[in-house]
Amino acid sequence: MSGGGAAAARIGIVGYGVMGKAHCHGYRVAPMIRALPVVPVVTVLAGRTGPAVAAAASAYGVPEYVTDWRRLVERADVDIVDICTPPGTHAEIARAAAAAGKAVLCEKPLAVSYAQAEDALAAVTGAGVLHAVGFNYRRLPALALMRQMIAGGEVGEVRLWRATWLSDEFTDPATPFDWRFDPAMGGTTIADLGCHLIDLAMWMAGEIEAVCAQSQTFIRDRPSPDGGRRAVAVDDASSALLRFASGARGTLEVARVAVRRPCDFTVEVNGSRGTLFFSYARLNELWHGGADEDERRYGMRRIRAEHPSHPLTAGWWPIGQGIGYGASFANQAADLLERWPAGPWAPGFGEGAAVQAVCEAMEVSAARGQWVRTDEVLAAAADHGRRPGRGRAAG
Amino acid sequence: MSGGGAAAARIGIVGYGVMGKAHCHGYRVAPMIRALPVVPVVTVLAGRTGPAVAAAASAYGVPEYVTDWRRLVERADVDIVDICTPPGTHAEIARAAAAAGKAVLCEKPLAVSYAQAEDALAAVTGAGVLHAVGFNYRRLPALALMRQMIAGGEVGEVRLWRATWLSDEFTDPATPFDWRFDPAMGGTTIADLGCHLIDLAMWMAGEIEAVCAQSQTFIRDRPSPDGGRRAVAVDDASSALLRFASGARGTLEVARVAVRRPCDFTVEVNGSRGTLFFSYARLNELWHGGADEDERRYGMRRIRAEHPSHPLTAGWWPIGQGIGYGASFANQAADLLERWPAGPWAPGFGEGAAVQAVCEAMEVSAARGQWVRTDEVLAAAADHGRRPGRGRAAG
Amino acid sequence: MSGGGAAAARIGIVGYGVMGKAHCHGYRVAPMIRALPVVPVVTVLAGRTGPAVAAAASAYGVPEYVTDWRRLVERADVDIVDICTPPGTHAEIARAAAAAGKAVLCEKPLAVSYAQAEDALAAVTGAGVLHAVGFNYRRLPALALMRQMIAGGEVGEVRLWRATWLSDEFTDPATPFDWRFDPAMGGTTIADLGCHLIDLAMWMAGEIEAVCAQSQTFIRDRPSPDGGRRAVAVDDASSALLRFASGARGTLEVARVAVRRPCDFTVEVNGSRGTLFFSYARLNELWHGGADEDERRYGMRRIRAEHPSHPLTAGWWPIGQGIGYGASFANQAADLLERWPAGPWAPGFGEGAAVQAVCEAMEVSAARGQWVRTDEVLAAAADHGRRPGRGRAAG
Amino acid sequence: MSGGGAAAARIGIVGYGVMGKAHCHGYRVAPMIRALPVVPVVTVLAGRTGPAVAAAASAYGVPEYVTDWRRLVERADVDIVDICTPPGTHAEIARAAAAAGKAVLCEKPLAVSYAQAEDALAAVTGAGVLHAVGFNYRRLPALALMRQMIAGGEVGEVRLWRATWLSDEFTDPATPFDWRFDPAMGGTTIADLGCHLIDLAMWMAGEIEAVCAQSQTFIRDRPSPDGGRRAVAVDDASSALLRFASGARGTLEVARVAVRRPCDFTVEVNGSRGTLFFSYARLNELWHGGADEDERRYGMRRIRAEHPSHPLTAGWWPIGQGIGYGASFANQAADLLERWPAGPWAPGFGEGAAVQAVCEAMEVSAARGQWVRTDEVLAAAADHGRRPGRGRAAG
Repeated sequence: MSGGGAAAARIGIVGYGVMGKAHCHGYRVAPMIRALPVVPVVTVLAGRTGPAVAAAASAYGVPEYVTDWRRLVERADVDIVDICTPPGTHAEIARAAAAAGKAVLCEKPLAVSYAQAEDALAAVTGAGVLHAVGFNYRRLPALALMRQMIAGGEVGEVRLWRATWLSDEFTDPATPFDWRFDPAMGGTTIADLGCHLIDLAMWMAGEIEAVCAQSQTFIRDRPSPDGGRRAVAVDDASSALLRFASGARGTLEVARVAVRRPCDFTVEVNGSRGTLFFSYARLNELWHGGADEDERRYGMRRIRAEHPSHPLTAGWWPIGQGIGYGASFANQAADLLERWPAGPWAPGFGEGAAVQAVCEAMEVSAARGQWVRTDEVLAAAADHGRRPGRGRAAG
Repeated sequence: MSGGGAAAARIGIVGYGVMGKAHCHGYRVAPMIRALPVVPVVTVLAGRTGPAVAAAASAYGVPEYVTDWRRLVERADVDIVDICTPPGTHAEIARAAAAAGKAVLCEKPLAVSYAQAEDALAAVTGAGVLHAVGFNYRRLPALALMRQMIAGGEVGEVRLWRATWLSDEFTDPATPFDWRFDPAMGGTTIADLGCHLIDLAMWMAGEIEAVCAQSQTFIRDRPSPDGGRRAVAVDDASSALLRFASGARGTLEVARVAVRRPCDFTVEVNGSRGTLFFSYARLNELWHGGADEDERRYGMRRIRAEHPSHPLTAGWWPIGQGIGYGASFANQAADLLERWPAGPWAPGFGEGAAVQAVCEAMEVSAARGQWVRTDEVLAAAADHGRRPGRGRAAG
Repeated sequence: MSGGGAAAARIGIVGYGVMGKAHCHGYRVAPMIRALPVVPVVTVLAGRTGPAVAAAASAYGVPEYVTDWRRLVERADVDIVDICTPPGTHAEIARAAAAAGKAVLCEKPLAVSYAQAEDALAAVTGAGVLHAVGFNYRRLPALALMRQMIAGGEVGEVRLWRATWLSDEFTDPATPFDWRFDPAMGGTTIADLGCHLIDLAMWMAGEIEAVCAQSQTFIRDRPSPDGGRRAVAVDDASSALLRFASGARGTLEVARVAVRRPCDFTVEVNGSRGTLFFSYARLNELWHGGADEDERRYGMRRIRAEHPSHPLTAGWWPIGQGIGYGASFANQAADLLERWPAGPWAPGFGEGAAVQAVCEAMEVSAARGQWVRTDEVLAAAADHGRRPGRGRAAG
Repeated sequence: MSGGGAAAARIGIVGYGVMGKAHCHGYRVAPMIRALPVVPVVTVLAGRTGPAVAAAASAYGVPEYVTDWRRLVERADVDIVDICTPPGTHAEIARAAAAAGKAVLCEKPLAVSYAQAEDALAAVTGAGVLHAVGFNYRRLPALALMRQMIAGGEVGEVRLWRATWLSDEFTDPATPFDWRFDPAMGGTTIADLGCHLIDLAMWMAGEIEAVCAQSQTFIRDRPSPDGGRRAVAVDDASSALLRFASGARGTLEVARVAVRRPCDFTVEVNGSRGTLFFSYARLNELWHGGADEDERRYGMRRIRAEHPSHPLTAGWWPIGQGIGYGASFANQAADLLERWPAGPWAPGFGEGAAVQAVCEAMEVSAARGQWVRTDEVLAAAADHGRRPGRGRAAG
């Protein structure tokens, strides 16, 4: 007997690197874990280098490719434009996609400045299209459970929030200069790693009112692909003190020069009634200790965040088997497509822009050596937006 | 531009439970991680209960389904029969598939007795079809690295091998009787959990010469779905001493009554020059300590088994991101399809039958309260095979 | 102002190696952590080699030493004889001490055979002196809490008990032959490491009815201190299946050839309502998971076994600070001296002999390749004891 | 035979709480682990409350006690004054002890302000007496090994240093007001917990040039022992960004409102060639990963910091047995007494004052909401010291 075919949501992915691949992976797996109203089909892949994008399209099972993303955006067989390029290109592609009436999923960070992020937000809301930012770690069961427990009051009033992200991506001074070392392309460590942590911070503990940050570049030049050496302007490592609007306090540290730390991020919250701790190296676990628990069992419990009662576990494996990074993209795809085409999607460009404001506040703070309020960043952008000739006004 | 389509390997899956789903998942993801000579396409799903298999086919994106596996086996659009049913049915389906000239991938354990496993082996070798057993944990990078390091001599001569598998699947006495409690369907804990560990043992440390086992059923009857209670004949927990042909010694324990142990298995080997340790709850890690390492750094290293130099990591994520259970099935699918149609496949039914011999030796040992040599099991089967009227002779 | 002096319990320690030192350490610290009716004072140290025992006495702050333990046993200023020599000498010294009317604390294992252990037991009970065996790990808060929770029914009916002890003490084939390789001196791995685990097993889960063991010597000869090589007769590693009288089952493994495993022992119990797990490498922790706990928090809790509500924590540090190996000896000293001189002491020679019976059953089982009931060992000793001319009868 | 008695170093301890007890413990154990030129003897204990100090003296085996510390300082049978009182009293006692010609060991923090610390430093250096501050965690083998590896260049140039100290000491709002909530007595979290981390930071990574801190008091009043409620002026939690003189950057966070975190402190350094990580909850371990290690073993090694090659392990237990908090005090005592009476002692009051300067810079920074250079604190104290009538000038 033959099964009936569901309607398709047709996706065009711009960018074919690790992110493009991870998103393809997500679309393939999503229908296995969730009953969706539509089948996601990646119809076209865009990339600048013909042979490379052709190879990727073939490898990812995408039937067509283009070498100019504008061709992808305007195609009739694309319902959703999924942006997986370097951050410096996000806003422009998002604006074009919105203008073409496409829904937009944009990888993080949304932009390379708050003004740019606000532009992109204005574009999607103006066009009335669905929009989302790829803060994929929200789609891990353990972090979703952490947020659910906080929101459910299980740790009481949030007092302290802290996170670190340690990577060794930039440890080797022989790593040549590329876009990741170029601030205009969004290559800062604050933007790359920090934006995830800031998103988690605000998701869990609310608005960040002010930050004080420091940044450092330890390896000040890199071999240029063109020969010679090129100065590096992005931060190898940054850290910040955070003040939340709620009165909670936080700390945040990101580094790409931490030897033998491949992608180790941790998040902890201390509330008036409990503590929660997550370490990405053990992503299927969430640690919890409650002040009201029997003192004779004093300690924290390692929750196996795979129980059917936990968020985002439906459709996955029996408890104890574990999921990996790829699952976050399948969950993201399922969460978005489940709401296709009515929406809303979350986190949207609004959240993306709010994260950008904090990133920018960190950058300003590190440059000035002072605390910076996030509303100063917002005000500066509003001020800038009022001036004639600004791109967004013309959009 | 449009990409050219690769040829397809058409797969029929018998069984649509967790295993059928995991295999579907694997076929979807495999082409993303490996350049394959063929695209795997699941063409048909078989299951006895029409509405349930129809729903599963729809959920897994399989276009057709049948309610009699015999219809699947004989279809022209099936190149590979993938058997995901309870163990008691494996051998019969495998024989039929081989007779129909299909390649066969069979979930573990291959059968419910060594004689049955040998039958299945004879069927596939007699028919000259490709065959494999779904020992999927071999396809985890950390365990593959463990085996590679052992085979490469990095721990010296293997002396001790030990493994435990602790689950709480049967802890609740209210869990009703089903096939998992029926030895004829292959429901023993030795067969279900033990077969994986035995496979790993022999893969890493070679042939097992003799075993001494004990088994216990703590919850002796279960609610019957038909009302009343039904006696349970399978072991809730078993443990064994192992003697390897090499002179190494081992221990093995499996249990399904270990509270709050969802699926925690560990494997350790102590060789003359080093120790390796794996814990499935942290499946992206392998612990290693070498006798030749600088004593001032005495201790074991937690290898992040995601480095590009490690087996089965190609096509996956940057180091530190982690994979999960599902990846083992994608890797398995990729490993098999990469060799399609020439083969050979591994582990094949020969390995599956060898594992079955050890399982059976454990069962006999536990029943007798004595050490049992695995060649006794082999001899008994050979003896049984020589008797007239036996099924296999007629096969 | 000056404090009044408490009465002293005068101790003579036989043996000045690691154990003698650890006991001295314990006596020094005990009064700091517990209000004791007497102050322990080590008055004399015995050892065969004059300069070495003199140096040790000086280092440990012991005012006198003797080179013949018989001189120590007969001294008027010794109330307690503390035996810290190799196991092969324990029974004889204990008999002499009992005969001299001294209380006896004997390091584990009590003897090198069950018959010898029973002799020692008969000596101390016959003489009516206090007696204890140095199963010091019982005095760790985490293990004491584990036992307390089991005894209090918190894991329900004990079903499975397992333990491993992995050491690399014998890994290097260049380690020369000494008493540890001599079975007559009690050098077997079963006796050395296994006796601790057997004691814990019986303490937690009751009597062991039968065992099936295997033993292996991987390094079959060692450099002799006299030149040449000497055959090694003790096991490098042993493992066993256990049947408890209660119906529970167990496994136990000990090894001294596990590279980069310095002294890693683990103990786990799975009961009908819960699981408890201890790992000595993190000795201030006890893991617990209960079947009745909220499933939404599925997992095990890492109890910090330092809470004031936990056994043996009184007198120590604020929670989170941690104790080490030495604390087990201070707790042991405090537990014994707290009951001085009335007693009773625990664990006594009775427990020591019961452990010895299981050790011997393991040795017999490994030699025969069969299950052995512990009451067979008891019966053999009783039978032997009835024969004329036997040492004990003359004692 | 009788051993000869070594000369004694006579110690008077001021304060009999946890710290006084820990120091007593240390003096008892020190001679067991190290050959010392003198035997430490605690001759007298001081405390304000007669019955309590009498009981403590009895419990700790100290023959005499006084209720006015001035009586202790002037005694002829005291060579070393060991100050274990609340921080607000340290400087005064130290000055008096120095004036009396006694060596001084002072618990941390040295004082409650930099000016006070500098006074104390001037007193001991002026009097020419030995002086030390009780930064006992330096005496843990794992942290000493960490420092040794950094100093030996094994992680290359230090780039990032981070530490957190999480405690739940103040979590319960019902905990009544006492000296720990009184800044004048040195009760700040920065002083109590932060001073240890700052000491470790400077010991490992050199001078701290500037800090930016935030502090928060979440529970703003406490039950007063006199009835009513009393406002709390100390920080429940503080965090800081650090700039080291070397160019390295750091972060530091201390909290006493982290539920189910009893005393969990962590320290990590990322250098150009390696990473080191320590967690006090597993105090016998040090994690290390080196950039030059074989990438096929990518990961960090859990060094068992108990190997004979490691600092401060001599005299302790065989590897794998573990030490606890108490050992840090025994090691401290041994390190100091080993150099008796010639000295020098380390860390001395100079280090204690330097730590105090950073504590004070953090407090000023948190109050101002700005970065503060530590030399500003030094200059302010110097300025203050130049004014007429200041205590120290008169000393």
